[in-house]
Amino acid sequence: MKIFVCGFGTVGQGFAEVLHDRGAMLRDMFEEEAAIVGAMDSRSYAYDPSGLDPMALVSRKKESGKVGGSGYSDSAEVLSSCDYDVLVEVSPTDVKTGGVGLKNIRCALGYGKDVITVNKGPLALRYRELVDLADEKGCIMRFEGSVGGAMPIINLCTEDLVGERITSIRGIFNGTCNYILSKMDKGQPFDQALKEAQQLGYAETDPTNDIEGYDSACKVAILANAVFGRDVTFNDVKITGITSITDEAVAMASSRNMVIRLIGEVTDTKLEVGPRLIPKGHPLSISGTLNTAQILTDLAGPVTVSGRGAGRTETASAILSDLMAIMDKRCRSRWAGSSSTIPR
Amino acid sequence: MKIFVCGFGTVGQGFAEVLHDRGAMLRDMFEEEAAIVGAMDSRSYAYDPSGLDPMALVSRKKESGKVGGSGYSDSAEVLSSCDYDVLVEVSPTDVKTGGVGLKNIRCALGYGKDVITVNKGPLALRYRELVDLADEKGCIMRFEGSVGGAMPIINLCTEDLVGERITSIRGIFNGTCNYILSKMDKGQPFDQALKEAQQLGYAETDPTNDIEGYDSACKVAILANAVFGRDVTFNDVKITGITSITDEAVAMASSRNMVIRLIGEVTDTKLEVGPRLIPKGHPLSISGTLNTAQILTDLAGPVTVSGRGAGRTETASAILSDLMAIMDKRCRSRWAGSSSTIPR
Repeated sequence: MKIFVCGFGTVGQGFAEVLHDRGAMLRDMFEEEAAIVGAMDSRSYAYDPSGLDPMALVSRKKESGKVGGSGYSDSAEVLSSCDYDVLVEVSPTDVKTGGVGLKNIRCALGYGKDVITVNKGPLALRYRELVDLADEKGCIMRFEGSVGGAMPIINLCTEDLVGERITSIRGIFNGTCNYILSKMDKGQPFDQALKEAQQLGYAETDPTNDIEGYDSACKVAILANAVFGRDVTFNDVKITGITSITDEAVAMASSRNMVIRLIGEVTDTKLEVGPRLIPKGHPLSISGTLNTAQILTDLAGPVTVSGRGAGRTETASAILSDLMAIMDKRCRSRWAGSSSTIPR
Repeated sequence: MKIFVCGFGTVGQGFAEVLHDRGAMLRDMFEEEAAIVGAMDSRSYAYDPSGLDPMALVSRKKESGKVGGSGYSDSAEVLSSCDYDVLVEVSPTDVKTGGVGLKNIRCALGYGKDVITVNKGPLALRYRELVDLADEKGCIMRFEGSVGGAMPIINLCTEDLVGERITSIRGIFNGTCNYILSKMDKGQPFDQALKEAQQLGYAETDPTNDIEGYDSACKVAILANAVFGRDVTFNDVKITGITSITDEAVAMASSRNMVIRLIGEVTDTKLEVGPRLIPKGHPLSISGTLNTAQILTDLAGPVTVSGRGAGRTETASAILSDLMAIMDKRCRSRWAGSSSTIPR
């Protein structure tokens, strides 16, 4: 299984480290090597059809700021000239146009490669186009880490709960907002809580994407497409952020034994992100940076899941789970022709 | 896919209803009919190789107390004389000997049939033997509903999180105890809370199995075997129930912003069920009859899941998910010889 990694920031490096750590496990399980043969950042790339050392890539990136010794002008040219089985697309997201991530995914699928991505922009803007292209080319596209990081949600809904009629998903999809709101529960003013989140690295210098609800809206759009079979984009989501939540509103909620949380909600017809009153003790009243989602189903009833919504290793773990699902399908496919029993 | 259902109480009937409801969906997804060809209760059985009407089975059981018109003396004789692909074993559980459920599962696996069960006794007593037999015969054995009912936990750990090193699972695995403890949080004495649970149908007339922690211990043993690859039985679990929890202890916990919950815990070396102090707001401080489990992993961090631990339709939904996983494997196997693209 030859892997090309596009984007070599925190998540790309985390994935390289995880792959290094889990190499032997993958060999044991699938009787096949999972090797990074190519890696690209915004300025350079490295490629070796016989495999690159993942830890050497991480070291070089840390030392020189570049993942490879070769420059390039067009990522699609690089991707079309290299030999690989699966593209791991983790370049910086662009929720306005889909950016280079969209271009890379289109390119890989176009050449019949499987794709794993955590890049929200392309999925929140061009989901249907990409899925149709994958189907047409017989490719697998997986994106567990694009919603909720290490919290299993997409594969949980589309695989474990595939027999259910899912009527709604409501959840906390942005750890930064939840951190700020949890601090406000304890009496901290918004500005101070935001500053603290920035100091701790939870919020970026420009926090707009988080606190205006745009990040949550991307995830809501992805869930609507992937779980509800809808055909929506980020722009279809009705969004209210958390910037207008006052200390008084939080105190008033608390006096009624409630908290205010930024909730994303998807149904067959609804597509919203906004502050909601949640009773204390309810699964969606969770505090801190965790993500959580409550999936309403017709047979199983409510199923709630929570986990870390971001992080180097956490996001890489979601990519690993997608990679293993692809190896399970691809390796079993190869295997199935030669025998009649079920592997693993 | 020909199904034989052993045990036609609440869960068996619920499964028949769910299969009736989801028949068209299964046909669409797998291009194959999933039909109940046989059903057995403690006194009678029905068998028709061309398929039985699930709703007629449910009606007959309700009206006559018997699922079929034929009597039998030995369930293994019936199972060995009928033609089916998968046994759904949902007869009443026996945690002392494994009972008729153990016998039925052994019989089916021995004849090379796949098995789905929610029967805790056989899994908590003879797990390794059954898994080895399944492997030897090339059979699939699945048992999602045996722990946590509709809460996805076994397949979540062994499939979605298969790339993780799981270091511990701690959870609430008995809704009856949790209902009683939640009521005690609000000042109700133990005896009154138990009585209320019995009146609502959450607790049985003889509540020993729940309140002494035996039911939770079965689930802890199953998780240890299935997720941690251990070889343990129910008898290896260190068990303390909830009968000695006093009103004073609950009040004392509350004054320290804690609740008391009956927690099952599994690690590579630990195997325990007992009352634990849990901080309010912690995922394991959940109230009511829900089940919940916190899975600690090395890459993803903590992943928490909760759902309904029991119920007619809820448990049936877990069986459905196992059935679909088996159909996915079996149908895909058949399919894989004839084409090179991935189905679904």
